[in-house]
Amino acid sequence: MDEQVIKKVVEDVLKKVGIEQKEENKANRGEPVITNPGLTEFVGTALGDTIGLVIANVDASLHEKMGIDPKYRSIGIIGGRTGAGPQIMAADEAVKATNTEVVAIELPRDTKGGAGHGNLIIFGAEEVSDARRAVEVALKELRRTFGDVYVNEAGHLEFQYTARASYALQKAFGAPLGKAFGLIVGAPAAIGVLCCDTAVKAAEVEVIGYASPAKGTSMTNEAILSISGDSGAVRQAIIAAREVGLKLLSTLGEAPKSLSGEPYI
Amino acid sequence: MDEQVIKKVVEDVLKKVGIEQKEENKANRGEPVITNPGLTEFVGTALGDTIGLVIANVDASLHEKMGIDPKYRSIGIIGGRTGAGPQIMAADEAVKATNTEVVAIELPRDTKGGAGHGNLIIFGAEEVSDARRAVEVALKELRRTFGDVYVNEAGHLEFQYTARASYALQKAFGAPLGKAFGLIVGAPAAIGVLCCDTAVKAAEVEVIGYASPAKGTSMTNEAILSISGDSGAVRQAIIAAREVGLKLLSTLGEAPKSLSGEPYI
Amino acid sequence: MDEQVIKKVVEDVLKKVGIEQKEENKANRGEPVITNPGLTEFVGTALGDTIGLVIANVDASLHEKMGIDPKYRSIGIIGGRTGAGPQIMAADEAVKATNTEVVAIELPRDTKGGAGHGNLIIFGAEEVSDARRAVEVALKELRRTFGDVYVNEAGHLEFQYTARASYALQKAFGAPLGKAFGLIVGAPAAIGVLCCDTAVKAAEVEVIGYASPAKGTSMTNEAILSISGDSGAVRQAIIAAREVGLKLLSTLGEAPKSLSGEPYI
Repeated sequence: MDEQVIKKVVEDVLKKVGIEQKEENKANRGEPVITNPGLTEFVGTALGDTIGLVIANVDASLHEKMGIDPKYRSIGIIGGRTGAGPQIMAADEAVKATNTEVVAIELPRDTKGGAGHGNLIIFGAEEVSDARRAVEVALKELRRTFGDVYVNEAGHLEFQYTARASYALQKAFGAPLGKAFGLIVGAPAAIGVLCCDTAVKAAEVEVIGYASPAKGTSMTNEAILSISGDSGAVRQAIIAAREVGLKLLSTLGEAPKSLSGEPYI
Repeated sequence: MDEQVIKKVVEDVLKKVGIEQKEENKANRGEPVITNPGLTEFVGTALGDTIGLVIANVDASLHEKMGIDPKYRSIGIIGGRTGAGPQIMAADEAVKATNTEVVAIELPRDTKGGAGHGNLIIFGAEEVSDARRAVEVALKELRRTFGDVYVNEAGHLEFQYTARASYALQKAFGAPLGKAFGLIVGAPAAIGVLCCDTAVKAAEVEVIGYASPAKGTSMTNEAILSISGDSGAVRQAIIAAREVGLKLLSTLGEAPKSLSGEPYI
Repeated sequence: MDEQVIKKVVEDVLKKVGIEQKEENKANRGEPVITNPGLTEFVGTALGDTIGLVIANVDASLHEKMGIDPKYRSIGIIGGRTGAGPQIMAADEAVKATNTEVVAIELPRDTKGGAGHGNLIIFGAEEVSDARRAVEVALKELRRTFGDVYVNEAGHLEFQYTARASYALQKAFGAPLGKAFGLIVGAPAAIGVLCCDTAVKAAEVEVIGYASPAKGTSMTNEAILSISGDSGAVRQAIIAAREVGLKLLSTLGEAPKSLSGEPYI
């Protein structure tokens, strides 16, 4: 009988508290999810409330307003509420693997009330199959590239590394093609500044860019450093920054957690 | 006795969970609410945490800093945390119905952590009674204009339609006066792009403008299309975009719900 | 036995509701907290998810990218998710009390999904001890300067007053040095507009600046007035605006509460 009482009470309380027990967005737990809503344009979803779409033949009037090079009839689209680094890194792998170009990287102020960016990334392709392939590759990469994104209730930290930067990183950050590239992001920006300083002191790297709330970001509460150089040095700089960032962000809240649960750097 | 136990437990749990059972903002449930706080300037509140106010005689020093045409002694103000489309549409009806002009439409990055805009709209009038009337009309229209705003935990969709655009829509979007006008908004922006493409493919409409995170928005995570043309075609374009948008946004979360519960298009 | 039932049910419900009973960020309850994470750069934390840091010798490559005057080897940093007014006021006291200069005030669009700004403020100093001292003073002042920041679920109000403005207020708002200064902020911006009008009508003050979503803010949903003049008049203007603001914000939600619980004006 106690069990029945308990069951009833739990139900009552849940009702009263007004919490509907939602099925959580599956994509936000990890692997890309492909539950096709019956649209040929749909490719899949992934971490960060990211969706991947493809348009075989963009309407001419819209194509022009979007400012896309006319030679790309087809476009692939990935866009999410959380991230920008992870999606740009994933797009970089996608352009390496496919016959596409990154024609637009737009960074809204977002993260669902968090301190950073969301994103809208558009691949241009002559064939729709190429655009679709690029989106598929990018969605698949996201689980990895969200590995070193750490979040708690006060802010976030983000670290990205690649041994060989390609066109998406060149477009977004001015990264030298083919060289090792690293990205360091800290929010609130005060923490980011110290992460940046730690990184450049930890190894001989070249600073490509520094962005902060008033310049180079979409008014986010982040300090962002992009670095290039010797592959070992770039990694070393990132790892040093990560260590400091995790300690600092912990002073404002709980221990920050990796969004995918699997750090890769 | 069981009932008593249950009651006590529910109370205990609620206390422990720390959830105060708040009276929800009544205006956010629908009709404009007028609980005057004892200020002659207060007109009412409405959906989207919208408040309506009136100033009979704006202080000269502030008037100048606000950059309002000196001939308008009186101003009406509506402003909300959520929306921009709904409030601009409502303002459009207000200018049709009153002797006022829309002198400012400012769009903060807001929606309370959502992906879109809030708004601050100012009516100029020579008589305070006109300014007040404009605010009253706008607040009353909001229930309708929030009808095709759909929201879930991952984003939002917004559709607006009028058979005859007036001065607020002209000011905000460059809509041709007296012609049918439609607005299509999708967030995250990736979904918006596909909604826009669907709309222009569905009917012969004229694209007035396209906005995205990096241009034409306040860095929101939205793609926005404004269209004009034949009244039937504009509606058809919007309805097609709405169908696609609802399917896509559902892939990232629950089925999106109309904010007012009463779609009007 | 009833007690046992209750205990078990509470546990079950909490588990089901998915609410982890977190230790709240201690700094957000009041006094600066100094739980050093083992970094010499860490100074402390305070209200508004504010962190205070110091860098004794900023790396040359980063120093240049940050655009800081080369004569300042050392920097002090305060940055938070919520506030801007409180932190700028606190920084103003810090520059009065120390041998430092405010070299940067950057205002992200933030407040954790709220309607306003976060902040990143950098003090330049020739000696690291001066930079550290400035950060310590600023963190300590924050409890006071958050006293007249009022928040509810719909928006916020913020009031600041000093009898004698110093260099941080000059840099941020163009405040005349050594004169009384006041700051009035209301969100949503519609409420802010009426607060501003009320202030300038209540006393003979000089309007230094007016900011709104489209100009002078980081696209926040705020209207902001900065005023100068006779000390009594500035206070009187602020107090009148506060009274109106509290009434208006209450129409959209619960009675707004002081963030520190101790209004100072």
